[in-house]
Amino acid sequence: MPTRSLAPAVWQLARLSSAGSVVESADWIPATVPGAVQLDWARARDLPDLNFGQNVRAYEGLEDFFWLYRTTVPAASLQADERLMLAGGGLDYHAELRVAGRTVLVHTGLCTPFELDLTDAAPGSPLEILIHPAPKRQSSPADRSQAAHVTKPAVSYGWDWHPRLITLGLCEEVRFEVRPAVHLRHVDFAYTLTDDFSEAHITVSIETSAPAAFRWTLRDPEGRVVLDADGPTATLASPRLWWTHDHGEPALYSVEVTLAAPGADTVVRRVGFRRVRLVMQAGAWDHPSGFPKSRSHPPTTVELNGRRLFARGSNWVNPEIFPGRINADTYRSLLALARDAHFNLLRCWGGAPVAKDSFFEQCDALGLLVWQEFPLACNCYPDTSAYLADLDRESRAIIRRVRQHPSLALWCGGNELFNAWSGMDDQSLALRLLNRNCFDLDPTTPFIATAPLDGMGHGDYRFRDETGRDIFQIFQSGENTAYSEFGCPGPSSVDYLKTFIPAGELWPPRPGTSWETHHAFGAWDMEPTSWLCTATIQHYFGESTSLEQLVARGEWLQCEGSKSVFEEARRQAPRCAMALNWCYNEPWPTAANNSIISYPALPKPAFYAVQAACRPVLASARIPKFQWKAGEAFTAELWLLNDHPAAHAGGELVATLECDGRSTELLRWGFSGLAPQQSLAGPSVRAVLPETDGGEFTLLLSEAGHPEWDSRYRLSIRPSRRPAVAATRAMNT
Amino acid sequence: MPTRSLAPAVWQLARLSSAGSVVESADWIPATVPGAVQLDWARARDLPDLNFGQNVRAYEGLEDFFWLYRTTVPAASLQADERLMLAGGGLDYHAELRVAGRTVLVHTGLCTPFELDLTDAAPGSPLEILIHPAPKRQSSPADRSQAAHVTKPAVSYGWDWHPRLITLGLCEEVRFEVRPAVHLRHVDFAYTLTDDFSEAHITVSIETSAPAAFRWTLRDPEGRVVLDADGPTATLASPRLWWTHDHGEPALYSVEVTLAAPGADTVVRRVGFRRVRLVMQAGAWDHPSGFPKSRSHPPTTVELNGRRLFARGSNWVNPEIFPGRINADTYRSLLALARDAHFNLLRCWGGAPVAKDSFFEQCDALGLLVWQEFPLACNCYPDTSAYLADLDRESRAIIRRVRQHPSLALWCGGNELFNAWSGMDDQSLALRLLNRNCFDLDPTTPFIATAPLDGMGHGDYRFRDETGRDIFQIFQSGENTAYSEFGCPGPSSVDYLKTFIPAGELWPPRPGTSWETHHAFGAWDMEPTSWLCTATIQHYFGESTSLEQLVARGEWLQCEGSKSVFEEARRQAPRCAMALNWCYNEPWPTAANNSIISYPALPKPAFYAVQAACRPVLASARIPKFQWKAGEAFTAELWLLNDHPAAHAGGELVATLECDGRSTELLRWGFSGLAPQQSLAGPSVRAVLPETDGGEFTLLLSEAGHPEWDSRYRLSIRPSRRPAVAATRAMNT
Repeated sequence: MPTRSLAPAVWQLARLSSAGSVVESADWIPATVPGAVQLDWARARDLPDLNFGQNVRAYEGLEDFFWLYRTTVPAASLQADERLMLAGGGLDYHAELRVAGRTVLVHTGLCTPFELDLTDAAPGSPLEILIHPAPKRQSSPADRSQAAHVTKPAVSYGWDWHPRLITLGLCEEVRFEVRPAVHLRHVDFAYTLTDDFSEAHITVSIETSAPAAFRWTLRDPEGRVVLDADGPTATLASPRLWWTHDHGEPALYSVEVTLAAPGADTVVRRVGFRRVRLVMQAGAWDHPSGFPKSRSHPPTTVELNGRRLFARGSNWVNPEIFPGRINADTYRSLLALARDAHFNLLRCWGGAPVAKDSFFEQCDALGLLVWQEFPLACNCYPDTSAYLADLDRESRAIIRRVRQHPSLALWCGGNELFNAWSGMDDQSLALRLLNRNCFDLDPTTPFIATAPLDGMGHGDYRFRDETGRDIFQIFQSGENTAYSEFGCPGPSSVDYLKTFIPAGELWPPRPGTSWETHHAFGAWDMEPTSWLCTATIQHYFGESTSLEQLVARGEWLQCEGSKSVFEEARRQAPRCAMALNWCYNEPWPTAANNSIISYPALPKPAFYAVQAACRPVLASARIPKFQWKAGEAFTAELWLLNDHPAAHAGGELVATLECDGRSTELLRWGFSGLAPQQSLAGPSVRAVLPETDGGEFTLLLSEAGHPEWDSRYRLSIRPSRRPAVAATRAMNT
Repeated sequence: MPTRSLAPAVWQLARLSSAGSVVESADWIPATVPGAVQLDWARARDLPDLNFGQNVRAYEGLEDFFWLYRTTVPAASLQADERLMLAGGGLDYHAELRVAGRTVLVHTGLCTPFELDLTDAAPGSPLEILIHPAPKRQSSPADRSQAAHVTKPAVSYGWDWHPRLITLGLCEEVRFEVRPAVHLRHVDFAYTLTDDFSEAHITVSIETSAPAAFRWTLRDPEGRVVLDADGPTATLASPRLWWTHDHGEPALYSVEVTLAAPGADTVVRRVGFRRVRLVMQAGAWDHPSGFPKSRSHPPTTVELNGRRLFARGSNWVNPEIFPGRINADTYRSLLALARDAHFNLLRCWGGAPVAKDSFFEQCDALGLLVWQEFPLACNCYPDTSAYLADLDRESRAIIRRVRQHPSLALWCGGNELFNAWSGMDDQSLALRLLNRNCFDLDPTTPFIATAPLDGMGHGDYRFRDETGRDIFQIFQSGENTAYSEFGCPGPSSVDYLKTFIPAGELWPPRPGTSWETHHAFGAWDMEPTSWLCTATIQHYFGESTSLEQLVARGEWLQCEGSKSVFEEARRQAPRCAMALNWCYNEPWPTAANNSIISYPALPKPAFYAVQAACRPVLASARIPKFQWKAGEAFTAELWLLNDHPAAHAGGELVATLECDGRSTELLRWGFSGLAPQQSLAGPSVRAVLPETDGGEFTLLLSEAGHPEWDSRYRLSIRPSRRPAVAATRAMNT
């Protein structure tokens, strides 16, 4: 028989004051695997819901204990030559595995798999996993820098949108398996596509417990066998290519590999064929021009199957604090929303743990590309041999697993490593090692050392900066090749806030309360009232008199701000070919955050604004600023943005200004057509703004033949001191 | 007995019209090994001296033939178990080796060693090496791009200072050796220094023809044995560090490795202990500042043994057209001059072949650092598996050889690969492969993919650019972290020109003559009269009426221009920490070139100007421009530049203007002291310039206590239309 899993084991857990402590039988508590020691402890000791109020404080310090998991070696009826194995995909973070009291394995890392052969262990023997306290670099303050020497993801040490809650425990499945004596340890499906994509030259390689021949078959998306091979290589003619959902179909084949050995151990996996590259952005070679001449910006334009894409997407962070609570269902609704948002690329941020296989499987199926980072973020990871050995092992495990997925777009060493707050540079051995490992194990997938690279932009993360520029202005003066992080904060909805901010703290929001615990205040020193941005809201609108009003105003800013950057980046195409907002999701309820989806998968109004800005084709306006004055001359450039690989016929775009219920047509732009993937600039509207009662006006762009292209911009207007003037008909400028 | 070389073989050569051509006995010509087929052919067929006039044309097309070298297997009296080996360090470029008519080896590459075991071949058997025609990429024009798919250095395909003469043949020694059965193939001396440099942890590893134990001893610079080890590792306490000559002593130890096997095969080599890094330049982390925020510039400051250096040096190119003509003597006078010029770093440019071991040995001994590039330059080297396999093999050979030398400062993928004229980028697999190989084989030496990197500057290469800026202005507006290439062209001396320009062509210099063959005209499209720059000379000085006058004017520009950039770069320290002019030497007589040394080792006047600008301590003036008008207010900022690791006491710097034999003191600057490695800005002089007869004036800076710091600037002045005005005493500004 092929490899089969036994029923899940029953695990128990005990908290130890030191590695060698004796555990009284009363001290054992039930353990859920996968899970986390903190979750088991909370359940056993009735700790309050960590998502509510300031309860997260009750979880402080649990990461400083040793924790002992225990179960017993199961009784398994083994056929001749079968093996009983324990297999895990990694654990959090450093542990000793003991069988019958003897340490048989020392393991480090969330992504490095481990396995133990238990065939010779007596059924019922104790099996223990001793989890060490979370690593904390000495001499570091209590922040992310405590993780600057390990591959344990830094996010749980605290971030501006993540509580300090350092996870620990068995975060991945730990399976008891019966395997044939000769079994598959790893299957690798690799291929190269010919330049014209007419053929895929496939190489299937396997790692086994003992030498064995193998057969494999490949089935097309309809399930028909298209290849049946008894050697490692074969050629598939006319492969159906894997495309992102907006450019085609994410065609998935499936490969089945079977060992020619007793038991016929078998692995089945979905695979896809695509060629992904990072290529130079349009115009890049013209810069720099004069002497002394430096280099051209590095390539950041994603090319899929020979076609340059505009990468529209977002920064994906861990969707739960505890990786052990994440499963395929966690991803499902979030990834369906990402596709609904017209995203075609997600950047999996290096501060967070690398996602599980089900994440990549869903991205494969949905046609979403993934930018995958290694677990380095905002720290200066050292050149020490101990760290490099850990990173070598963990990164190889990550590459071997993730490279199987057609959704993988690029590897990245980690987040913001070449900036002052990290202090790593191109000579850092950790990044040279990652480049080496990616080159050795997955050379045809692009690798970048970090983001931002030269030419790419990160930030701003505010609607209004300290110089008074608003987000419209900030990005209209940007000249970046990719906006791989930018954000605009917004509050959570009132209803949602009420679920985790105690009623007595709800109004007014104040520092030092649950609002601050949930990141409304004091989270980021560049924004003194982060992320609720009360000062910015007051700047534009004056004092807010209710929670409802404050939230509505914050949502308005987040909607118009987020939308404006996506559209501006697309207007800057093809020099710019990427816009990924910070951030998509969040791992727990935040009171305010740059996320566009509240935990666990609740879209904020900004989600829908971003969704509108990411439609493959839309009418767009470059609006100089968010807030205007009555009597001021309003201007906006009209654009049509087309990410479709297809052209569109000409038509007429109508720009209308709506104010206090009155509509004024400003301009009709007859355009003769829209080329594939064209950002087409049109005329500018110009109109003197009237006095309003409502404090706002709307610019509406509509195209009769394509109502799905229509766009609306809701802008702020302040009264002038002068008498109101009616909006005048706009002139072409 | 250990390995011993037999007497050099007698080689013959024949030109073949095809690989299989039969050679008549009369067609064999004598061959010199090492050498080149073109040199043997020229000798046999009385081709004219290629350095003279346009004779190089007589060598055209020789690279398109097959060439057959032959000798015979020597008779060697072998003791029991001894082996007769043929060993070579590489050859130019692709060859088949045959013994007694049978092909036993196919070899590619100038740097990859090869060896053959001839023990079983009958003495007197024919030994043949069939050299294939030079590789030329189809569909390329007759320029460097024909070498864009091979590791054969591109320079011989033609450059703006190198004739098109594509070398071919046995360019390295080919030795017949008798070796003990168990012999040393490779010895690797590696070490790590503790952070405080108090200990060197040494690892000696060997590759042998069969397993064997070994002993090794280490002798200090005085020849005393300081370590005697019978295992691979040992620790040296208080190692004397290797320093560049300007910062200390280039201390060299020697290691002797002896096999514990019959024959006691032995290798002796000089070694040194240093730690070299590329670190971030001062202030780099403060940039970029605003959002959207990109990355900080990559590190380009050389740190040696914990001390940041200002790298003063030059770009080293091949000192001969034919690598086979290069030996230790070729390097000796050039490298002695480099040290005399106060250089501490040479960039070995990737267009040229990697230098031989004697180059690095001399740099080790002289205390000169070496920036070593791989053989890629100004081309788009492809991602093809054939090229990557060649590059992998050749680069590993280069790294294994050169990493033994303490003079090695950094690895670089190649020259100007990330610019429009090359079109490679960070995703190019060749560069990822080189990073991988350097990381695997020499991880503690810095690696950069190419120069320029972001922040570094290449060019300008002209005294005056197309916008009318002169070289003073161009670099005073530069804000680069390293000036790794910049140049100022100058003619060769009149006497030297007469040795290779036919008398009848000497005056006036004209395109289409030997002047153009030797790069005076038409060499670079950015400078229509390159490199003689007659238009620039005419711009500043009017028509030249004799060769002597033209050359003197050109030399003047090259002197003041080259000097000005070195000093400006040093004034920009510590943000800038590197100035390497293009170029140091040249491989044949040029009529005009950016070189500061004429072929083979004849310093041009600019050499001495550069030497003055590279003194570790000097007085310096930032002068706004080269040419002035009588009556104009001359200004210059005074500086003291100290690259010494030691401080200097205060003193008084006197600035004097000399004109038509009259001296006018402009300013006395009493400075209180000069810190180690400080670039100290002082006051500015200001003086209205007089009418002159001579068309020039000199700014003289002198410091009574340190006449070795004195500097002179010879500047141009044109008559005004107004009456002459005496120079006035300058005011501090």
